[in-house]
Amino acid sequence: MKRKITLKHIARELGVSISTVSKALKNSEEIGRDTKEKIQAFAKLYNYKPNNIAISLKNKRTKNIGVIIPDIVHHFFTTVFRGIEKYANAKGYNVIVCVSDESFDKEVINMELLANGSIDGFIMALSAGTQLKNDYNHLKEVTAQGIPLVLFDRVTPEIKCDKVVIDDKKGAYNAVTTFIREGRKKIALITTKDYFSVSRDRAAGYREALLDNDLEINEDLILEFPSMEVDEKGIEEFFTNKKVDAVLSVNEIFAIHSMRFVQSLGIKIPEDISFIGFTDGLLSKYSTPGLTAVAQHGEDMGKIAAEMLIEKVESEEEEETYTTKVLEPTLIVRGSTGN
Amino acid sequence: MKRKITLKHIARELGVSISTVSKALKNSEEIGRDTKEKIQAFAKLYNYKPNNIAISLKNKRTKNIGVIIPDIVHHFFTTVFRGIEKYANAKGYNVIVCVSDESFDKEVINMELLANGSIDGFIMALSAGTQLKNDYNHLKEVTAQGIPLVLFDRVTPEIKCDKVVIDDKKGAYNAVTTFIREGRKKIALITTKDYFSVSRDRAAGYREALLDNDLEINEDLILEFPSMEVDEKGIEEFFTNKKVDAVLSVNEIFAIHSMRFVQSLGIKIPEDISFIGFTDGLLSKYSTPGLTAVAQHGEDMGKIAAEMLIEKVESEEEEETYTTKVLEPTLIVRGSTGN
Repeated sequence: MKRKITLKHIARELGVSISTVSKALKNSEEIGRDTKEKIQAFAKLYNYKPNNIAISLKNKRTKNIGVIIPDIVHHFFTTVFRGIEKYANAKGYNVIVCVSDESFDKEVINMELLANGSIDGFIMALSAGTQLKNDYNHLKEVTAQGIPLVLFDRVTPEIKCDKVVIDDKKGAYNAVTTFIREGRKKIALITTKDYFSVSRDRAAGYREALLDNDLEINEDLILEFPSMEVDEKGIEEFFTNKKVDAVLSVNEIFAIHSMRFVQSLGIKIPEDISFIGFTDGLLSKYSTPGLTAVAQHGEDMGKIAAEMLIEKVESEEEEETYTTKVLEPTLIVRGSTGN
Repeated sequence: MKRKITLKHIARELGVSISTVSKALKNSEEIGRDTKEKIQAFAKLYNYKPNNIAISLKNKRTKNIGVIIPDIVHHFFTTVFRGIEKYANAKGYNVIVCVSDESFDKEVINMELLANGSIDGFIMALSAGTQLKNDYNHLKEVTAQGIPLVLFDRVTPEIKCDKVVIDDKKGAYNAVTTFIREGRKKIALITTKDYFSVSRDRAAGYREALLDNDLEINEDLILEFPSMEVDEKGIEEFFTNKKVDAVLSVNEIFAIHSMRFVQSLGIKIPEDISFIGFTDGLLSKYSTPGLTAVAQHGEDMGKIAAEMLIEKVESEEEEETYTTKVLEPTLIVRGSTGN
């Protein structure tokens, strides 16, 4: 049995990136003629066929769903996974999960691996690397071949498919409004670089809530990290140097570490400073005080994504319409706010 | 291109379990003659070949490593994954992770999916379902075909392969000895059913430490749950009805929920009761008080597993020898012990 050649093999053989190979095979203008010809010749020589199996299997269901998540450390993705799994299992589907580890290359490799006939469709949240690169050719290839795809949480307008998201902007807006109602004036935001679609939306909600309440936006009070990894030193420096009375954090680990650090300085929560964090994981529940959280309803999100996907998988319709479902965020009030 | 038939397809078509199919194809005595003949005939008809691709690829490396972990909720497995990944990436390998979700069937499906030529070898921890079923045919198949396999943390003597484990018994023994040195007498154990190899070893360490210190083993003080999922009610009932002054827990979430509950009853930690939990995750660090923890050195474990696997993958030797590396547990002392 001959081994199937993949984008990854071509990239490795020719010493170029997977993204370059993908673009070259689509005849993209972005790639130089020489490189393009070399890649196309190589692909022809080795009989590269994008997902040829998937096509032949159009009517042979595997009853497997492929899920690609960016990260296995964050509780949110694991709750979405549970939601997908509960619904899918009840419908007789197995769920296979791969982790892109926030890397574009790994996302592509995982998709290729699963798109070889092992699954009926994909549910995924985009990796940081993919959002940073803004390259969605691997997704376009999959959808072009008729493999159903549902994006959740981290999505892009570049891809036409079903999507399910939380209203991140509103979640942030409501959190900041809560602070303002408590009389807070110096409201900080701890976030990540805005190539994360969710961070961009949350930052927009933060800014809008301040402006709507005639508070100035002070860029010094916005602490931006390159990734979702906690940078303990960065957090400690921020709270040593800035005077703030409220903090909205785009993830719970940033918030929890911040709370821990300000408490060590003798600052009282919520008397002196209050905290709200996305996305209501175990740390929010078990910290002291508990962290008031913007719940993202991961399990519901997963259930809806699975519903949308299975409907597409089982549909006989040729004509496709796509829906984006937007869930409402909820504020779970705990001891880190109110005074 | 013809689709490869898998154990799963056969099982579904004939309405039997994957385990039955696997055993029937091995001509196992455990399966009735009728069923065996039916399965063997079906496999022959559809030309079932176990991992035929893997054999033909013996000398064609994919530079991918397949990792199968039981769970994505527990911090420990994610730290092992990070350790594997760091070492493997430095050596030019990609890591693909699948999650068995503690299910035997999913473990088999994931292995089949990855063993089709996508990876050079496996690193895995056994699912609860597999340990409960005590059925390792899917692993035997993979190793029989020369695909290198390293088991970590949850292992079995049934499979000849490289292994890396922590000395769980010693970890528990040292924890209980710490309690006894503090003068604790009524030492509880919160654990899971002993088909989890790690829980069995930890319970053995708990018992041995009590006996070595002339303390009686009181079975009433051993709280056993069917899975690693936290059962809040079960925990609350236990602490409402039993008088204990120290608690060893086989995972941090059992310990954290217990601490939370006893604090709500006005019981003081560590004055009235002290706590130690496996395996030093984020909750242990950020709870109040911090949870004294038996660290399992997940990242080291992952690094060693990746080292062992890559050595086997790249080795030209035909003769195989297998090693089991045993890591020493470390006690990370925090506020939940000492008085």
